[in-house]
Amino acid sequence: MEGLLMNADVAVIGTGVMGSNLARNLARQPETRVAIYDLDVDRARAVAAAHPEAGFLVAETPAALAQMLSTPRVAILMVNAGPATDAAIADIAAVFEPGDIIVDGGNSLFTDTIVRGEQLEGTGIEFVGVGISGGEVGALLGPSMMVGGSEAAWQRLRPLLTPIAARAEVAGLEAPVPCVAHIGTDGAGHFAKMVHNGIEYADMQLIAEACRILRDDLGLSPAAISAVLTEWNAGELESYLIEVTAEVLAHTDAATGLPFVDIVADAAGAKGTGAWTAKVGLDLGVPVPTIAEAVFARSLSQAGALRALGADIPGPVGNTEPLSTGDRNAAGGPTGERAAADGDDPVAPDRLGERIETVRQALFAGKILAYVQGFDEIAAGAQAYGWDVDLGELASIWRAGCIIRARVLDRIVAAYDRQEGLGSLLADDELRAEVGQAQGALRSAVGAAIGQGIPVPALSSALAYLDGIRAPRATAAIIQAQRDFFGSHTYGRVDRPGIFHTLWSGDRSEVEL
Amino acid sequence: MEGLLMNADVAVIGTGVMGSNLARNLARQPETRVAIYDLDVDRARAVAAAHPEAGFLVAETPAALAQMLSTPRVAILMVNAGPATDAAIADIAAVFEPGDIIVDGGNSLFTDTIVRGEQLEGTGIEFVGVGISGGEVGALLGPSMMVGGSEAAWQRLRPLLTPIAARAEVAGLEAPVPCVAHIGTDGAGHFAKMVHNGIEYADMQLIAEACRILRDDLGLSPAAISAVLTEWNAGELESYLIEVTAEVLAHTDAATGLPFVDIVADAAGAKGTGAWTAKVGLDLGVPVPTIAEAVFARSLSQAGALRALGADIPGPVGNTEPLSTGDRNAAGGPTGERAAADGDDPVAPDRLGERIETVRQALFAGKILAYVQGFDEIAAGAQAYGWDVDLGELASIWRAGCIIRARVLDRIVAAYDRQEGLGSLLADDELRAEVGQAQGALRSAVGAAIGQGIPVPALSSALAYLDGIRAPRATAAIIQAQRDFFGSHTYGRVDRPGIFHTLWSGDRSEVEL
Repeated sequence: MEGLLMNADVAVIGTGVMGSNLARNLARQPETRVAIYDLDVDRARAVAAAHPEAGFLVAETPAALAQMLSTPRVAILMVNAGPATDAAIADIAAVFEPGDIIVDGGNSLFTDTIVRGEQLEGTGIEFVGVGISGGEVGALLGPSMMVGGSEAAWQRLRPLLTPIAARAEVAGLEAPVPCVAHIGTDGAGHFAKMVHNGIEYADMQLIAEACRILRDDLGLSPAAISAVLTEWNAGELESYLIEVTAEVLAHTDAATGLPFVDIVADAAGAKGTGAWTAKVGLDLGVPVPTIAEAVFARSLSQAGALRALGADIPGPVGNTEPLSTGDRNAAGGPTGERAAADGDDPVAPDRLGERIETVRQALFAGKILAYVQGFDEIAAGAQAYGWDVDLGELASIWRAGCIIRARVLDRIVAAYDRQEGLGSLLADDELRAEVGQAQGALRSAVGAAIGQGIPVPALSSALAYLDGIRAPRATAAIIQAQRDFFGSHTYGRVDRPGIFHTLWSGDRSEVEL
Repeated sequence: MEGLLMNADVAVIGTGVMGSNLARNLARQPETRVAIYDLDVDRARAVAAAHPEAGFLVAETPAALAQMLSTPRVAILMVNAGPATDAAIADIAAVFEPGDIIVDGGNSLFTDTIVRGEQLEGTGIEFVGVGISGGEVGALLGPSMMVGGSEAAWQRLRPLLTPIAARAEVAGLEAPVPCVAHIGTDGAGHFAKMVHNGIEYADMQLIAEACRILRDDLGLSPAAISAVLTEWNAGELESYLIEVTAEVLAHTDAATGLPFVDIVADAAGAKGTGAWTAKVGLDLGVPVPTIAEAVFARSLSQAGALRALGADIPGPVGNTEPLSTGDRNAAGGPTGERAAADGDDPVAPDRLGERIETVRQALFAGKILAYVQGFDEIAAGAQAYGWDVDLGELASIWRAGCIIRARVLDRIVAAYDRQEGLGSLLADDELRAEVGQAQGALRSAVGAAIGQGIPVPALSSALAYLDGIRAPRATAAIIQAQRDFFGSHTYGRVDRPGIFHTLWSGDRSEVEL
């Protein structure tokens, strides 16, 4: 083969589904020739053979790959996070030269990305961590991409990544917005992707809880709930996850003729990014309780031995006021199999619409509060790690391609547009007013759920978070007083600055420290 | 000085308050001569001078310390967790010999303890991590101690530590039980101490929330709440933390004449062990939501900018049924300053007792559920790290000396006694029945709090956790269906084993994998 023909513009390392789809997306762009490499050369060859239109160059070794690439070289790693990523970086770094760029497009923990960048310092090779959201379909048709790395690397990558990104159609803008942005240096891209996933966990859990209320409290069937969600999806709740939920609720299991969601085991898996978001929130001192509750709800769903004990624990006995007038769930009270069949003793039609609207508003409030928590974590991360993150731009590239794409992101973008350096999403007058308008519905829906014994950990956590923000004095004064009593941890006073301690085992006078 | 006179039985390294108090406790035992060492020799000298009765030998260097100690030597490090601990270990290890024992009595993260033990492997020096609870007073008068290390090291340490431990008076037992136990190898002691602290965070938060309900919903003054807590402390809720809370609530601020808890700033500090517990729960896949909510409640209390926005967010408008009959908090609805003055429009006396009892039962249920979460985490940690932890023995040594000491631990000990290898505390018939009896009260109290806008993140999390356990089908089926739709993450079926995927973008048929 001629040397000239071998000139590839970019390499994709790892030809699993995500890698091959991203490679095909890149190869679809005119003027972009893509080299692919895989430790399993046969897999790379098979991908090239299956997609002749892509014109992939298959490299058999890292050295051959380096020769194929025009300089400065760009290689995008699409391999499993962890040791596989380290091994791939080592292989590529050994054949790359100063000025070349290694991109990690996997789901790496941002601190790993920071360390890997440091390890490559001195080689002159640029390391860039890109959070890529959108799953397999996104990789092929247009993902949302959060880029972390140097400005120079971003300028080199930008023309490669912009044409393959998802495009958000925005009202008032003629051209759609490509969903790729430079979030900050080193780990910033993977940090943003991590929080994206944490918000995704919360959003999924909130939606699932809303569905549970619609079913167990309002007596709607899965098909009816699907119709409700489809209606919601035409309004401010419009989002990919609502759409997905409507789809799975509408689906019928072929084997049994039952609603699909009823034959799926009630046990949810997790791949760790939600837990990372909660852990980083704990590390940074940023409250992200709704995200944490969503993660714990999944782990509780897997705790079979614990849940097996649940049948033996009584539920509500009608001592609280449910959202619905019916008491069909009051005896025994729990959800699911123990509840009466869908459709029994339904809520009167004239009130049903109103009650569904309450659940919708509750979900909307919970969703906004999950975003408040997530964006606060990104702001705190930016502060802690020295990233100059444009939160509005980040929100803007989540509007298409990624799993949490949602109409509400337009509102969030607008909030950041309205006020530069907005401290928190709740600092935006419009969003805060909307949460205030919806708080009553959130309160009603949570009250109804707990009155019926329906588990709503994320919705009730969002409400407690909101009430914690609202309360001029919540529970911390007593806790700090306890801490001063048993551990001399000191306290502040409301009436003057300073640090104080009461001599609890002495004469109980106060000393200023 | 004569060589013989210099023979010390044990050394304490670090003579801050915790270290000097533990050294004094050791020195009070007949036949135990204590050497002390501090990087700041003057501080060690001052401690020795201040406590001549202790007969401390002050070592000026690690080498001198090694010479003073009878062999096999035992040095207990009471220095700050982190780099100071590493430095102290290095100093002592350099002068110790095979068979000697270095004990870390600080608040180290258990994984650090594991690593430090590994680093000393090959030196023949034993490394032991001991979780010591009870604060300054406990260190002096008798702490609860959780020992992690080899059986051989435990046999050497046991006669030193047993006499200085707290002693739990147990009904039916003639001799009090010393609160020290060998929890397992390497990091087991520090792991148990970490979870102890996590439970402590949850317990403090639950108590503070109960107080908030008594105050804002039932209109009791801090002094009246103190009296209620004192009464509770004579029953099944008897515990050090209830006692402490009653004390701080009864205290009047001398400067203002106001209740002390009203002049303390509503901002709670944290030293990280609660966050560790939540993070390890996330790592191990063990749901510990109530512990996490307690940690997040403290971080939210510090989020001044966020809380400043709260005044602008409306609260309940009387659309839910409060626990109290009064509506004095309904307009505006929040807690604290915005609530009407204590004692306005009080709950009718004939109902007040009943309502206080509801809050008491709610607190009791929340507390048991926090213990369920904590013990589940220890069981999972034991499994993950290969420790043979006797959970009943661990509960037994938390009955005195430590911050969470409480009568309920007798019940927990009894539960583990009744059934060897009890999988979860909830698997105990008696405890499960009690939670079942109290769940209605928990539900009522949380319902009342959210109806009034009182933030109760820990109580509502405990309730959602309980309802998640109770629900035969909660929210996970919908989440797993969503995950299969957008990420091909597969699902199980309720009607047969196997792993399945629906071809969502194809003909929506199901494939078995």
